[in-house]
Amino acid sequence: MAAPNYSSLGFTTIIVTLDGPVLVVLLNRSKQRNSWNSVLPLELQKVFDLADKDDRVRVVILTAEHTAPAYCAGAELSGGWGTLWLPEEEKEGPHAHRDTGGKTSFAIYRCRKITIAAVNGHAAGVGMSAMQLPFDFRFVWAGAKLTFPFVRRGVVPEATTSYLLPRLLGHSRANSLLLTGDTFPADSPLIQGLYHKILPTREEVFPAALAFAQELAATTSQVSVAVTKGLIQHPGDSVEENHIYDSRGMRELAQSADGEEGIRSFKEKRAPKFTGTLSKDLGSWYPWWRELSTKFRDTKL
Amino acid sequence: MAAPNYSSLGFTTIIVTLDGPVLVVLLNRSKQRNSWNSVLPLELQKVFDLADKDDRVRVVILTAEHTAPAYCAGAELSGGWGTLWLPEEEKEGPHAHRDTGGKTSFAIYRCRKITIAAVNGHAAGVGMSAMQLPFDFRFVWAGAKLTFPFVRRGVVPEATTSYLLPRLLGHSRANSLLLTGDTFPADSPLIQGLYHKILPTREEVFPAALAFAQELAATTSQVSVAVTKGLIQHPGDSVEENHIYDSRGMRELAQSADGEEGIRSFKEKRAPKFTGTLSKDLGSWYPWWRELSTKFRDTKL
Amino acid sequence: MAAPNYSSLGFTTIIVTLDGPVLVVLLNRSKQRNSWNSVLPLELQKVFDLADKDDRVRVVILTAEHTAPAYCAGAELSGGWGTLWLPEEEKEGPHAHRDTGGKTSFAIYRCRKITIAAVNGHAAGVGMSAMQLPFDFRFVWAGAKLTFPFVRRGVVPEATTSYLLPRLLGHSRANSLLLTGDTFPADSPLIQGLYHKILPTREEVFPAALAFAQELAATTSQVSVAVTKGLIQHPGDSVEENHIYDSRGMRELAQSADGEEGIRSFKEKRAPKFTGTLSKDLGSWYPWWRELSTKFRDTKL
Repeated sequence: MAAPNYSSLGFTTIIVTLDGPVLVVLLNRSKQRNSWNSVLPLELQKVFDLADKDDRVRVVILTAEHTAPAYCAGAELSGGWGTLWLPEEEKEGPHAHRDTGGKTSFAIYRCRKITIAAVNGHAAGVGMSAMQLPFDFRFVWAGAKLTFPFVRRGVVPEATTSYLLPRLLGHSRANSLLLTGDTFPADSPLIQGLYHKILPTREEVFPAALAFAQELAATTSQVSVAVTKGLIQHPGDSVEENHIYDSRGMRELAQSADGEEGIRSFKEKRAPKFTGTLSKDLGSWYPWWRELSTKFRDTKL
Repeated sequence: MAAPNYSSLGFTTIIVTLDGPVLVVLLNRSKQRNSWNSVLPLELQKVFDLADKDDRVRVVILTAEHTAPAYCAGAELSGGWGTLWLPEEEKEGPHAHRDTGGKTSFAIYRCRKITIAAVNGHAAGVGMSAMQLPFDFRFVWAGAKLTFPFVRRGVVPEATTSYLLPRLLGHSRANSLLLTGDTFPADSPLIQGLYHKILPTREEVFPAALAFAQELAATTSQVSVAVTKGLIQHPGDSVEENHIYDSRGMRELAQSADGEEGIRSFKEKRAPKFTGTLSKDLGSWYPWWRELSTKFRDTKL
Repeated sequence: MAAPNYSSLGFTTIIVTLDGPVLVVLLNRSKQRNSWNSVLPLELQKVFDLADKDDRVRVVILTAEHTAPAYCAGAELSGGWGTLWLPEEEKEGPHAHRDTGGKTSFAIYRCRKITIAAVNGHAAGVGMSAMQLPFDFRFVWAGAKLTFPFVRRGVVPEATTSYLLPRLLGHSRANSLLLTGDTFPADSPLIQGLYHKILPTREEVFPAALAFAQELAATTSQVSVAVTKGLIQHPGDSVEENHIYDSRGMRELAQSADGEEGIRSFKEKRAPKFTGTLSKDLGSWYPWWRELSTKFRDTKL
């Protein structure tokens, strides 16, 4: 695949910049409080799919302008809930619907690079779900007002929230967030466990995330990260099954150029310089799991 | 189903009061430290089954008198462990036993309304397990002495504790609580993650839980809560399976009267007024999971 | 099985002492920073297998000299990664490898006694994974520098870390530890949830763990502990399946001598004196689960 030129892809809801190994995705709907319309999820899916395959990219950051009224205020609902599904889905019936939040969560969750949400403003609904939970790391402004308001809107948590959130935080905290629909500050004991780092001001969130991204890009192996994410997401159903997978991962990577560089740099007490890439060095044994198809029948849905 | 009159059901171990949309279940064995006898679990099972089906009920609170010596001191064991099983179970053999704590946990866990344990006193054994873990929320007095003493009594954690507790808190904390059998204050870092709110005095626990219950009853959709609880308890085995379920939930509810009221009240910047009920508006697609039968053979056990 | 004399088993990388019901395993490679060589995992596997079967043992503690440069500095890699696998594995190909860290994790995780890691120094790599995660409890020095450096070494977390760590702490914290490869002090909010107790000085860690071990040995039933560990590790796939297992556990143990002593000592307000042992009192119904074989074909691997 030719390396994409992110600035010429015609995105309108996001501004995408490749800063060395770090791909920065900036939400471009500040005036609309970065709300979720019909275009934003498609562009997010596209950019995370591209980042997954682009060997130059080691880390992806999603963020907003820190002067925007919100990181993401949730779905744009002036047209009603019906704007959330397609005419084809409408025609097939309710079992045919596939939530765009969930499709976006997939693109982010399956991206094999390190992913960071730099939440430098308030967040609600899909701004909490698809735009935070499938990421590896979340940085947040301490003053951000955060809410999963679904039970107060007559609907339910979407974007695979009910799978991801209890795994991230445990069921006790997930209940507190999902069944109240209440708004929490980022430093509430009920929600702070979601965040890798909580920053005092909005301005500090993105620079902190960027410095973290650059450090990880400089020190970690792209292949190690991808296989480790695979092991965390698909550990197997028992400690025994996990042992079979992590043994294989360790064995394959130990023989790779990155594995050798890892040991050599350690002995030489210097920073490693990893050159392995997913397109060349991931190996045919990966992935070791199968994904359930979520397509509706054999239609395009 | 005709709406039950909770005060005329002949309960002896609990006093049940319907306070608007909030059903308050008050333990009525203060002199016996609210210990678990053969009647209490049956009455708890009955009242949570009724609350599940009674459309008037949006939230259920279990609590004790704050002047009682304990929220629940555990099982009443003056007659020995044998009082925990039935003569029919005794006759069939040890594999026929079905723990009454577990049956009570089921009634609470499966209740599709919001459930709150207002733990305004000390709690031990089944007072920690069935009478706290299957609830959506736990409020507690900071000075409560809390213990899962099973390994110090020659038995094992019951009432599905070994399933529920690690999911609520993670295995690290669950080990600390279950394998020591030790007693912890509610504000210990080892146990505080169980609690939505920790109150300084015993007197404050129930009022805080009641105010919380009233707020949730006024602001949340009964149907949204039930489907959200279903998604949290039965998320599917993968992010893909979850996507199929939450898409369906979102699609069905978005079309419902509550979904429409959710969006309308949001646009009009006012509190929602949800009218949907489980008996009329839950839809035939719910539930999407099957429960394993726990009955022993085809007997009544 | 005759009771082993731990001091005459010829261990070289560990010093093993039976102190009443507490088996103390002291790492004996202080000069090598207690690093993992080809012998240490075999000796650890042997001693935890023996402890599992030795009725005299109620608790096992793994620790280091507090004057050593580290609790465990990770794998000894001067010979390269290739020292981690056997010539037979090399011959069969990468799918035949079975990580020695994982085999050691199994021996510890499957040990039916209470297990404690007393981490009185820095820990890296396998010093974090096999030598901490499969234990029931971890005590640590607040100043310990802790790291899972795998993604910075071009390899992946091993020793079933990707299964155990997210279950212990949740995925949010597990990501922070595994995907950064960074070094954390024990009292970092990102890692402190792993630890039952954090001690201010290195000298205090082992005495605190020993006192805790002695208290648990004196107050808990060996059989209760084993069955409770089984329930925590193998709870079943649903609350219903769990109910069947914990009901059986409760029923069997309530009838046992330890169950009777548990109730008698409680009534008499005295400490229990449990005499039940795994070799005599565990019952044929245990274990209720099957382990996946991790052997490679029918070879010795």
